[in-house]
Amino acid sequence: MRKLKLTLAYEGTDFAGWQRQKNARSVQGTLESALQKITGSKVHVTGASRTDSGVHAQGQVAHLCLNSTLPLATLQKALNALLPQDIVIRSIQRMKPTFHARYHAKRKLYRYSIWNRPQRPLFDRSCVLHVPVLLNVQRMKEAARFLKGRHDFKAFHSTGRPVRSTVRTLSTLRIRSKEGNLLIEAEADGFLYHMVRRLAGFLIEIGKGKHPPSITQELLRGRSRVIPPTAPAKGLCLMGVRFA
Amino acid sequence: MRKLKLTLAYEGTDFAGWQRQKNARSVQGTLESALQKITGSKVHVTGASRTDSGVHAQGQVAHLCLNSTLPLATLQKALNALLPQDIVIRSIQRMKPTFHARYHAKRKLYRYSIWNRPQRPLFDRSCVLHVPVLLNVQRMKEAARFLKGRHDFKAFHSTGRPVRSTVRTLSTLRIRSKEGNLLIEAEADGFLYHMVRRLAGFLIEIGKGKHPPSITQELLRGRSRVIPPTAPAKGLCLMGVRFA
Repeated sequence: MRKLKLTLAYEGTDFAGWQRQKNARSVQGTLESALQKITGSKVHVTGASRTDSGVHAQGQVAHLCLNSTLPLATLQKALNALLPQDIVIRSIQRMKPTFHARYHAKRKLYRYSIWNRPQRPLFDRSCVLHVPVLLNVQRMKEAARFLKGRHDFKAFHSTGRPVRSTVRTLSTLRIRSKEGNLLIEAEADGFLYHMVRRLAGFLIEIGKGKHPPSITQELLRGRSRVIPPTAPAKGLCLMGVRFA
Repeated sequence: MRKLKLTLAYEGTDFAGWQRQKNARSVQGTLESALQKITGSKVHVTGASRTDSGVHAQGQVAHLCLNSTLPLATLQKALNALLPQDIVIRSIQRMKPTFHARYHAKRKLYRYSIWNRPQRPLFDRSCVLHVPVLLNVQRMKEAARFLKGRHDFKAFHSTGRPVRSTVRTLSTLRIRSKEGNLLIEAEADGFLYHMVRRLAGFLIEIGKGKHPPSITQELLRGRSRVIPPTAPAKGLCLMGVRFA
């Protein structure tokens, strides 16, 4: 048995998320079907991140155990030939038998893309959130500085997936703006359920002037009643997973 | 009656081309329906270019006559609100009554996009042609230099639309290459049916080494039996139309 690490990209639009489901098209299920066609046996794939319905990935990582002796380059070509056009396998590597895509993930990098122009997007419309009113990027950056670091992110956690602790370390929270394209990049050791989408939703409200940036500190200390809205899935993309 | 000039963009993927057809979704038909909903009367729209099924536009131009006294900014907002997500009206201008989007078009600029990497495209897959083998850009540029200028482009004309003359002036034919993105930009006073797609198909064959660049001259002089293949519609985009 070989333990393999897949790095893959997908457009989340037509998937009901990463996780296999009955009667719904999932990334995991689509990948497992393709692997079964190639190897002739059932293969279980474990993803580093269980991305939600509609969320995209440029650098999702998954592991699997394979009995086949196919060269990895051949396996990759066969997979890409079988997979639909909205999934691409970027690379396959052989790993130690103990490797686990979820447990060993040290950091995940997400990007939230905002199309901040009066006119709606055309070619990018499935991968960006359209915010027609001009956002104040300076205020958003100010709020982002408060959010960066180790905090209790309870206010940015959607219930539905119970967790032991809502403390996380946001090692990066960067806002980049170029000609109406606004990117929010967030890197952390782990994210709470909907956390990046709620960070994006909150920062957008700050950019609109609904709250002053200083409210961020109160929110992190549990002293504000502001509820960060969950920004739509289509703006979110899992950019990469780091293991060291 | 006001004569208006619309500048619009669309993703051609789900359209059977510009021209209105029975039982098929066209850009012209979609636009005319939206205008009829707003004005309450039948409106005819004339496009500068009748783009084929699957061809995209960033800067298509069309004209129409309108009885309504709606301010143009309001009309544009109403149109964009009614139109589906794959069409966007970029601007509306009032013109002299004699203006004609097709007859007065002096130059059209098209771009053909090639994804020249081993792995297939993901997010851009409906707007680029994937050519996995590495193309020789220098040879393509050499051939492009022969094609630029005033020539009889009969070899690049698909029958189906009769024309008086197959002589055209290709004022620009530029090849730009950046990290596996190859763009062919062509500007002319007018294009023959399928001409840009055949120019792209021919240049791709040159880039693959199927013919030497020097064959271009023979082809233009009618001394070669090479038939330039028509590259797929999805790589083509009408970038703009100039009227002066």
